Amino acid sequence: MRRCFLIPLLILPPLLRAQQPVQYVRPIIGTQKMGHTYPGATVPFGMVQLSPDTDTIPYEMNGKYNPDVYKYCAGYQYTDKTIVGFSHTHFSGTGHSDLGDFLLMPTTGPLQLNPGTADKPENGYRSRFSHENETAEAAYYKVKLDDHNILAELTATNRVGFHQYTFPQQSEAHVILDLMAGIYNYGSKNVWTFVRVENDTLITGYRQTSGWARTRTLYFAMTFSKPIKKYGHQNYDTSVYKGFYRKFDQAVNFPEMAGRRIRAWFDFDTRAGEKLQVKFALSPVSTAGALKNLAAEAPGWDFDAVKKQGQEAWNKELSKVQVKALSNDDLVNFYTALYHTYLSPTTYMDVDGSYRGLDQLTHQAAGFTNYTTFSLWDTYRALHPLFNVLQPKRNADMVRSMLEHYNQSVHKMLPVWSHHANENWCMIGYHSVSVIADAIVKGNIQGYDAMQALEACAATARYKKYDGLEYYMEQGYVPEDKNSYAVSKTLEYAYDDWAIAQAAQKLGRTDLYNEFIKRSLNYRNVFDAATGFMRPRLANGTFRKEFDVLSTHGQGFIEGNAWNYSLYVPQYPAEMIAMMGGKKQFTRHLDSLFTMHLPDAFFAETEDITRDGIIGNYVHGNEPAHHVAYLYNWTDAPWKTQERVRMILQKMYKPTSDGLGGNDDCGQMSAWYLFSTLGFYPVAPGSTAYALGSPAIRTATLQLENGNTFTVEAVNQGVENVYVKKVELNGKPLQQRFISHSDIMNGGKLVFYMDRKAVK
Amino acid sequence: MRRCFLIPLLILPPLLRAQQPVQYVRPIIGTQKMGHTYPGATVPFGMVQLSPDTDTIPYEMNGKYNPDVYKYCAGYQYTDKTIVGFSHTHFSGTGHSDLGDFLLMPTTGPLQLNPGTADKPENGYRSRFSHENETAEAAYYKVKLDDHNILAELTATNRVGFHQYTFPQQSEAHVILDLMAGIYNYGSKNVWTFVRVENDTLITGYRQTSGWARTRTLYFAMTFSKPIKKYGHQNYDTSVYKGFYRKFDQAVNFPEMAGRRIRAWFDFDTRAGEKLQVKFALSPVSTAGALKNLAAEAPGWDFDAVKKQGQEAWNKELSKVQVKALSNDDLVNFYTALYHTYLSPTTYMDVDGSYRGLDQLTHQAAGFTNYTTFSLWDTYRALHPLFNVLQPKRNADMVRSMLEHYNQSVHKMLPVWSHHANENWCMIGYHSVSVIADAIVKGNIQGYDAMQALEACAATARYKKYDGLEYYMEQGYVPEDKNSYAVSKTLEYAYDDWAIAQAAQKLGRTDLYNEFIKRSLNYRNVFDAATGFMRPRLANGTFRKEFDVLSTHGQGFIEGNAWNYSLYVPQYPAEMIAMMGGKKQFTRHLDSLFTMHLPDAFFAETEDITRDGIIGNYVHGNEPAHHVAYLYNWTDAPWKTQERVRMILQKMYKPTSDGLGGNDDCGQMSAWYLFSTLGFYPVAPGSTAYALGSPAIRTATLQLENGNTFTVEAVNQGVENVYVKKVELNGKPLQQRFISHSDIMNGGKLVFYMDRKAVK
Repeated sequence: MRRCFLIPLLILPPLLRAQQPVQYVRPIIGTQKMGHTYPGATVPFGMVQLSPDTDTIPYEMNGKYNPDVYKYCAGYQYTDKTIVGFSHTHFSGTGHSDLGDFLLMPTTGPLQLNPGTADKPENGYRSRFSHENETAEAAYYKVKLDDHNILAELTATNRVGFHQYTFPQQSEAHVILDLMAGIYNYGSKNVWTFVRVENDTLITGYRQTSGWARTRTLYFAMTFSKPIKKYGHQNYDTSVYKGFYRKFDQAVNFPEMAGRRIRAWFDFDTRAGEKLQVKFALSPVSTAGALKNLAAEAPGWDFDAVKKQGQEAWNKELSKVQVKALSNDDLVNFYTALYHTYLSPTTYMDVDGSYRGLDQLTHQAAGFTNYTTFSLWDTYRALHPLFNVLQPKRNADMVRSMLEHYNQSVHKMLPVWSHHANENWCMIGYHSVSVIADAIVKGNIQGYDAMQALEACAATARYKKYDGLEYYMEQGYVPEDKNSYAVSKTLEYAYDDWAIAQAAQKLGRTDLYNEFIKRSLNYRNVFDAATGFMRPRLANGTFRKEFDVLSTHGQGFIEGNAWNYSLYVPQYPAEMIAMMGGKKQFTRHLDSLFTMHLPDAFFAETEDITRDGIIGNYVHGNEPAHHVAYLYNWTDAPWKTQERVRMILQKMYKPTSDGLGGNDDCGQMSAWYLFSTLGFYPVAPGSTAYALGSPAIRTATLQLENGNTFTVEAVNQGVENVYVKKVELNGKPLQQRFISHSDIMNGGKLVFYMDRKAVK
Repeated sequence: MRRCFLIPLLILPPLLRAQQPVQYVRPIIGTQKMGHTYPGATVPFGMVQLSPDTDTIPYEMNGKYNPDVYKYCAGYQYTDKTIVGFSHTHFSGTGHSDLGDFLLMPTTGPLQLNPGTADKPENGYRSRFSHENETAEAAYYKVKLDDHNILAELTATNRVGFHQYTFPQQSEAHVILDLMAGIYNYGSKNVWTFVRVENDTLITGYRQTSGWARTRTLYFAMTFSKPIKKYGHQNYDTSVYKGFYRKFDQAVNFPEMAGRRIRAWFDFDTRAGEKLQVKFALSPVSTAGALKNLAAEAPGWDFDAVKKQGQEAWNKELSKVQVKALSNDDLVNFYTALYHTYLSPTTYMDVDGSYRGLDQLTHQAAGFTNYTTFSLWDTYRALHPLFNVLQPKRNADMVRSMLEHYNQSVHKMLPVWSHHANENWCMIGYHSVSVIADAIVKGNIQGYDAMQALEACAATARYKKYDGLEYYMEQGYVPEDKNSYAVSKTLEYAYDDWAIAQAAQKLGRTDLYNEFIKRSLNYRNVFDAATGFMRPRLANGTFRKEFDVLSTHGQGFIEGNAWNYSLYVPQYPAEMIAMMGGKKQFTRHLDSLFTMHLPDAFFAETEDITRDGIIGNYVHGNEPAHHVAYLYNWTDAPWKTQERVRMILQKMYKPTSDGLGGNDDCGQMSAWYLFSTLGFYPVAPGSTAYALGSPAIRTATLQLENGNTFTVEAVNQGVENVYVKKVELNGKPLQQRFISHSDIMNGGKLVFYMDRKAVK
């Protein structure tokens, strides 16, 4: 019903122009299937992601890995019929998971402390809900909990989640704090939880887990808008040493709760229609830190004011790109993509700058904002380059955060996947060096020492214990018989090494340039000229005999097959093309990739790759081929880049809950969308060049931090006018197929003249 | 053999006079049977208690409580034949246990990571040892580890344990850090452990446990005197989520270890006779704190210098009491008792004043030393009163520490048993108020606000949720049908209330005086005139029918029977005697207590009471009757106090490993010894009076902190001259049977004239 109602709006673009960008944000996009986004409330780069969880899936069922656990990386699946509760931390778009900390659920009727099941929600505290009674906006989420007849509204500041529950007339109003709930609940993931009822409206505590982050602790301070009438908890540990705690009835009104498996409850008297509000502050450091954050960010009880403040914060960030689009859908896609790119990395420090370091010590962030949630294998590609354009100050702080991680690392390595004071080592490569090199090469050096940063990159790239790196440094490639996914690793190390060399060159460090530019050529060592593909090589120098260029399993590649991954030489496209037989042959190769017919079930067994994310054999739902559509620029058929990019934009990004063709991966998928929609893409971060594609907007104006304005205009734009006839930069025809970073940052105008026919 | 060799020394007292007090300390006293002391190295009130553990006993065997666990409260049992290793924290004399943190063991030969068993030590890393090759001194412990042919020596500063291992020629020299080891290893007591190999000589980490202390974390920094050759660890968790840690071989040379069940090892190249040294610093706050403590207290590698410094620290404290005794044994007993009283409370802050609070936050101790290990049910009786004489500054800091505990307590209660930033609630009463009142009444108010302290006492005594207190406040007694051990609780609450009233009176708070002096009479409400005993009373006001005055089980008393506990009205001895039928009848009652014959097996089923601690039916090995021998002073037969006290001193304190008649209980047993040996005893802390007994020294000179000197002299002293003919204070005959605190603190001389016949 509601969907039908939306249709009239979609045909009224002139009216919609008057809207603020924030109104185009649809957090629901990507919450179905593999997008792994969450619909809840958060502010740009906020520490709190307060969002509904529609199921809590144990990692194992009957002693076996439960594949459904993957669906719940962000806690929410659009097709689910029940909500378990609202938890305060969520990753956006990851292909692995954790978090879901501090699940709150308001209920009525007899107290039920178990969550119940999706098919029988009445057996637990969870509730049925309907999308008709659900609203998801930037910094605001609302849902009616049918089983309890409670209207739940959520908003957030950076570090504080703000709940507003409107209760029916009800003498038994409960708020459950389920400390056993969590995303990716691997076996004994809860290490310890601790709760203090400080007074009749204030609760503090922490949750310590060992999961994807091996040693993670998050602290909270929760305050209610009215006094608790009664409270208690149940400890589900099978073995609890009670000692002299036996003196107390700990189950009811005992103000200190501690254990591995705890569920707490708080009872209130409510009148019909009464709003019970809960403010829930987080801290990476201490409950005192959470209290500071609460006092600084959300001192009052005006829910609407906090919501407004959050939406204004979003609007401010989103307004830095003013877009005229072909359709309302495109505006929704654009601003939701921009929204998704501004969800992570996330703030990881208290208002006073205190944060937990990788060494588990409390540190002080002096002069910068400390961030965590660096999904670098994904985000080095387009997200951090996007930040160098739209969020250079924040990106410099992210570099600074990585350097602090390096300083605190016992390995003296930059982050691979930085996660709440932990290194979870997820995926391959050492792509921090790409992010840092990209910032240095683009001159975005603010608040960190570039030379020290370069040294950290070099040290990271020389850490022999890491993932086949010792072999790579000795033999020039990772031998597949020594270390799996060896081809992917070799290719990515070579690219990363090139990035280091670029930064070294920029900073005049010839020694490091020479060391790493040499290593950057190592991609050649895994190229098998006989097949024309990158191929697993063994320690003895020979290529492995068994080789399936289509399979994604055991072929030397991770999250991709040889077809996709073999093209991963972003640092030297021209050399790669030559190596693969020259432009003509390479063009045919690329064409095959996009057009090849594969059976429906082909990628079914690869968790991270689904049909929705595939065009032919090109996998857009995963990252390794994100630069591939732009490679036609190095052939004689750049029009094919234009065609493919527009096709990918259309097929892979839709303004619907199932609109994302794969994990959004902390904004990388969305960053690809944004660059591509603007008409240019950073094929090799660490270079100042952007390859041109085909813009999908009418105009876009970028308000840059340096005060300059950069405008992209697509003349004669249209859904079918995907080909670029000519390009003008500041009124002058552009001869090459690239623009440079300074072209953007100096401000100016890039005009594409579009056509429905390719310029061949 | 060695014991025989000692005999000649014992008959040469004149020679021994030249010794320093520290040389009389025998930490081995009490390490056999129920003394629960430890023989290892520590300094006065030190944070580190570095001591050998002779067994690691799991709390449960085959699903049942393992009664042997009680033997290992201090980790060491003298009759054991093997040493498992050396751990850094130990309680002294407790009847419950915890700690045993960070067990180190040097080994040779093939690496063995399991501890092995006492009967087959060769199957593990533990080693046989012999007392012939063992030396235990104040701040120094030495033992030969026979199975590994290693000489292990231990010493300590306040916060740093210092190990010195002399290895044989051996290419395989290992040091094992067993993070699974610990005292009172209840099921899943290890919550989390974390280790970082910072460089080739420095290790940091922490151990987090949930046992007697529910939420306890202790941090360390360990440094070796030579580089580690190779290291590793094994994780014994059955279920470990590895994630991308799979990239690494974590077992060998991987510098970050984390998990619930970890054993680490470090290998060294050693030459014959080479000394490998290990410094192991603790911190309650962080690894950074441990590093600070290490740098401040033990910057160098001179083991002998650190040992000397530790022994000098002991000598300084012990020398404040200069004693001439009847025998070398008495000197050993005296200075070992003084040593035992200075083991706890223990320092609980870093050198910079940082400590962990009960609220799990890091606090700063400004202007005082923060202490933990307050076994208050034991130590309020004589230990803290002893500190008011010999260690007033420290005792005032202990009061301050209790007040900080109060401030941090979510219950707003003073400590019951303060234990490493935890309240373990052990035993009954709220005896902090006794310690505080005693300090206030005796004018020992330094560095804390007495009025705030009094308010904290009152708030604690009014915390209704605590252990029957609500009933007590409503009905004037704890009903046994509502709360067990109800008589003990009623009696102790009444005494504590009296103590609050004394402090209130001193501070002019008539309101509080009136409130609590009234409560102090509640002892009357559990006295059953019909039997002449205190007796369990029910909520309906009647005494419980079933009543066995001898049994220690289910009779309304804890760690004692009605015979012993009925005498617990220390605040009003005269009134109690009147209530019990007058002086004559009471004298007979007391006589019976001491002379009654009970079958050998009588107390066998009470863990805390053993034959060694019993005289007749009088239980000295436990605390509730510690004041009882002095009660004859309120009758017409004070000579019986003199006789009993000297008998108890002789029977319950011997200079041997099995020399203590019961748990030393953090120094309370030893404090009883010291007061009684000096000839006076604080029957009711909170009063300024000390009841006179029979001194057991020839002379004792107390060098007081205020610069005054107080001397006790026993004229005509002798083993059989236990009766006091007359007493002179500063040359004037003393008419009453008491001296006051000011008599001591003003300095002067107390002369007892001894006789072998009682003055009846």
